[in-house]
Amino acid sequence: MPVTFEAPIKDMLFNIEHLSGWDKIGQMANYASVDLDDVNAVLSELGRFCTEEVAPLNAPGDHASSKFENGQVIMPDGFDAAYKKFVEMQWQSLPHPEEFGGQGLPRVVGAAATEILNAANMSFALCPLLTDGAIEALLTVGSDEIKNTYLANLVTGKWTGTMNLTEPQAGSDLAMLRSKAERAQDGTYRITGTKIFITYGEHDMSENTIHLVLARTPDAPKGVKGISLFLVPKHFVNGDGTLGARNDVRCQSIEHKLGIKASPTAVLEFDGATGYLIGEENAGLNYMFKMMNAARYTVGLQGVAIGERAHQQARVFASERVQSRPVDGSSRDAVAIINHPDVRRLLARMRAVTEGGRAMAAFAAGWQDLAHYAPTAEDCAEATLIGEFMTPLVKGYCTEMAVETASAGVQIHGGMGFIEETGAAQHYRDARILPIYEGTTAIQANDLIGRKTLRDGGATARKLAAMIAETEQALASGSVHFQDMAKRLTAAREDFLSVVDYMLETAPKDPNAAFAGGVPYLMLTGSLFAAWQLVRSALAAQDALARGEDPEFMTAKIATARFYTSHVLIETGAHRDRILLGADSLLDAAL
Amino acid sequence: MPVTFEAPIKDMLFNIEHLSGWDKIGQMANYASVDLDDVNAVLSELGRFCTEEVAPLNAPGDHASSKFENGQVIMPDGFDAAYKKFVEMQWQSLPHPEEFGGQGLPRVVGAAATEILNAANMSFALCPLLTDGAIEALLTVGSDEIKNTYLANLVTGKWTGTMNLTEPQAGSDLAMLRSKAERAQDGTYRITGTKIFITYGEHDMSENTIHLVLARTPDAPKGVKGISLFLVPKHFVNGDGTLGARNDVRCQSIEHKLGIKASPTAVLEFDGATGYLIGEENAGLNYMFKMMNAARYTVGLQGVAIGERAHQQARVFASERVQSRPVDGSSRDAVAIINHPDVRRLLARMRAVTEGGRAMAAFAAGWQDLAHYAPTAEDCAEATLIGEFMTPLVKGYCTEMAVETASAGVQIHGGMGFIEETGAAQHYRDARILPIYEGTTAIQANDLIGRKTLRDGGATARKLAAMIAETEQALASGSVHFQDMAKRLTAAREDFLSVVDYMLETAPKDPNAAFAGGVPYLMLTGSLFAAWQLVRSALAAQDALARGEDPEFMTAKIATARFYTSHVLIETGAHRDRILLGADSLLDAAL
Repeated sequence: MPVTFEAPIKDMLFNIEHLSGWDKIGQMANYASVDLDDVNAVLSELGRFCTEEVAPLNAPGDHASSKFENGQVIMPDGFDAAYKKFVEMQWQSLPHPEEFGGQGLPRVVGAAATEILNAANMSFALCPLLTDGAIEALLTVGSDEIKNTYLANLVTGKWTGTMNLTEPQAGSDLAMLRSKAERAQDGTYRITGTKIFITYGEHDMSENTIHLVLARTPDAPKGVKGISLFLVPKHFVNGDGTLGARNDVRCQSIEHKLGIKASPTAVLEFDGATGYLIGEENAGLNYMFKMMNAARYTVGLQGVAIGERAHQQARVFASERVQSRPVDGSSRDAVAIINHPDVRRLLARMRAVTEGGRAMAAFAAGWQDLAHYAPTAEDCAEATLIGEFMTPLVKGYCTEMAVETASAGVQIHGGMGFIEETGAAQHYRDARILPIYEGTTAIQANDLIGRKTLRDGGATARKLAAMIAETEQALASGSVHFQDMAKRLTAAREDFLSVVDYMLETAPKDPNAAFAGGVPYLMLTGSLFAAWQLVRSALAAQDALARGEDPEFMTAKIATARFYTSHVLIETGAHRDRILLGADSLLDAAL
Repeated sequence: MPVTFEAPIKDMLFNIEHLSGWDKIGQMANYASVDLDDVNAVLSELGRFCTEEVAPLNAPGDHASSKFENGQVIMPDGFDAAYKKFVEMQWQSLPHPEEFGGQGLPRVVGAAATEILNAANMSFALCPLLTDGAIEALLTVGSDEIKNTYLANLVTGKWTGTMNLTEPQAGSDLAMLRSKAERAQDGTYRITGTKIFITYGEHDMSENTIHLVLARTPDAPKGVKGISLFLVPKHFVNGDGTLGARNDVRCQSIEHKLGIKASPTAVLEFDGATGYLIGEENAGLNYMFKMMNAARYTVGLQGVAIGERAHQQARVFASERVQSRPVDGSSRDAVAIINHPDVRRLLARMRAVTEGGRAMAAFAAGWQDLAHYAPTAEDCAEATLIGEFMTPLVKGYCTEMAVETASAGVQIHGGMGFIEETGAAQHYRDARILPIYEGTTAIQANDLIGRKTLRDGGATARKLAAMIAETEQALASGSVHFQDMAKRLTAAREDFLSVVDYMLETAPKDPNAAFAGGVPYLMLTGSLFAAWQLVRSALAAQDALARGEDPEFMTAKIATARFYTSHVLIETGAHRDRILLGADSLLDAAL
């Protein structure tokens, strides 16, 4: 039987307090009323709700999967009731502006909440996740009329949202979009085309679904510069806010997938459906990118979430499963397998990369808060650059690590891990979508090289490296363990800087050679930033220990930073060599 | 739709000719009648059969899965007919002794055949694989009566075999076995107990199933020294060879698994079933280890097989899927994704680790042949040590790489990879059992440290390192690419030797610290040996090129060795540091 889930509230609060820049965030005008006790109360209550109502639906939802019958999606038992409670308890509104009925909590808190919900049940959490994306888009570029008509019901979760990008011939390459939008006399548009891979594209957990759809007007330029964004409601909304007739968008089928089986992935047919233009014609891709950046960050959180869930499952199993005597001869009887060195290695790695990802995500969320609300425009601009630099790292690194972590979770279970009833295998299947959707790891790496490193001539990359060097200084006066961490962090930072130099030099003259190193660059940088945040955690934990605070937790934080730097971070040298010395052999390779 | 499968015959023949020690094997008395043209003919014919009859059942078999109804296992459509053809065409008998109706081909050929069958359809191939194990056991320790009664029909595949080790409380730890065997007056035994995870424990593709079962006699010593091996036929065999009544062993259920779904994994209840002792009482574990060593090697081949199949699937998809313009601006139109640098990186890595695994397995098989039939007892003994050293490497390294490779295959497909109809996801699910069954990767690592490295004081490890150093010499006079490979091989060999020294020194005084580095040691050594064989391949390919032989194939062999050494082998430094410097932080880690 799958293990129950407990939200890692303590680790989340620690990160918010010590890594996210809470000293600045908590002082900003719009967050001045929020203190850490409030945050604790909110996250603990969400954790309880998820443990009791959402997590228990995860395995049954996977087993039943969503079904498509007579044009309708049938959700697994319990999803509808849990979603109604989710709405009642106002969880959807947590991070959204008070102006539209939200609770206006900072992103650093919203990120923790998103992780909790996804760890409890990723298939369930995808529905609110897509709604968040729609809210973000309408807040950014919706007209007042659109905002007034749709936002309040999206913010409560009474209505849900979707993103309609992909078509059969247009996946990573949105230039190949074919869906059409023809302007009618009343200023609305008739949307025609087939969209695939639409998460929660059809379901009946909410009264209405608000589709955001990319399509081309007849006279639009070719390629990505001719894409516009439309809002297409499943049911029309009357002037008084009640629901009217059904729009001409229908679900044709849902996919039979490897994982996230309870989440319906729809093929939607738009057959002259009425759509409302969002923002300007032909600017749709820019708007979508804003939404996607938020969504990419959130998918990174899903990676942390799956890692957390897989780790909890494996740790419980390893503590209970008795098998074989210890190698050190300390017992003549078989012991729980958590005592065997390689099980310890696997669990320690699962925990370290999960906590490292969470720490990096908390750090990134802090910059997102500052980007929106820092006191000066200069501070906002700096925070925007750093926050955007972090996005492909959180997305790419945390999702690749989620696949590895979920796989390790199966391994710890041995043969039982391969049996579906145990629950470990579901995480391995669910995790596999994460490095793919919202842009594959290679797409994240292209973003890291192009928009995040080359565009400002490496300035943000080097600024972050300088901040890492400051952390190394802070470590240098510590114990031998802290000096060890400093040494490894220095080596990895130097690897990072030599790759930044290489990218700046190579990309203009030999783009194939530069981009051949893209994913190694992303993985190197992701592990460096995760290590950096874990090491900052260790410093904060050391201070807390000196004050006598929570010795067990604080000792574990330091141990995790040590493990991460000596077992995970040390891969940066191999990545550097792949990038700096490996382009030729890659581009010449037999495929 | 899943891509069809083509057996990689050319690569297999190349390995047999250049890596396996064919110059010695082909000269041994019992193989003197076999030449490479015969080998080519046999493997090509098997390849055709697998492409046409076995591979097309792989995806439908996964989709249908085997079912359990009214005490019977129902195999997916087509399996029964394909198995009958498999038997008719005498594929089961390939590697078995002519004395019992086999074709007596060398293991280096049998290994290639096993890979082909498993790449076509791992679920199907598991049935003959288990039969091979049973044949091996009976050949080694069966009495003449047992051999005469059972072997001929196993060698043809008319009857199939199973291995019954695992019980709910006894997985990796066979000391915890509880199944009972009570001696009856007629010298047979009554076997009672529950066995789980029995591959093809029940099915009706063959007339009879021969279960090999571990159980304890009432007065047996505790632990692993009190385990005996029994043969328990599903149907009794009459004196005239016809089948008699059914024995008291019944299938209770089959498992709902992550992968290899067509292969029935049975819970078997032995309810006073009649068993025949194999060999001596209480010596069962030793016999089982012999079988298991053969089976472990074969599971390593399954890893290579899944890698090959996943690579073929991904390469075809990447050649056909058109998406996005090239980063170097060489086309204004979107191109097949195989042109994008990171898709190239993924495909090159899939190919390199698959060919590296195949090369290492061919090398190991050659030593297995020599171990049995080398002209002098001294040569046999040396070959036995080297062959046994290779077993945990082939099993552990090739199966871990299979999981990674199958995962990369899904990644290359993007969103389509997550849809089950595409076929890539099945490999990702199927592969996951490989690092678990027949001993997890950690169990292989324990074997590598304990029986293979410590027991002879590192002698075999150092002998192999000296052989690698000779290959480095041969490279040194070559082109800059060959010198590069030599440099990397040298560095990795030195990493290996420093870990061997560490293990010899550390294991006696601090076993936890030594075994904490077990899996990194296995992965380091596996990648070193795969690289070594690929580099030997590159040397042979260079000679062949000089003779004008098959330039495309030979150029690709050299390119693959270059890619492997500069992108995969360079991980050995991180493994060395994990082992030599990481034990403390691992043993102190928070789990």
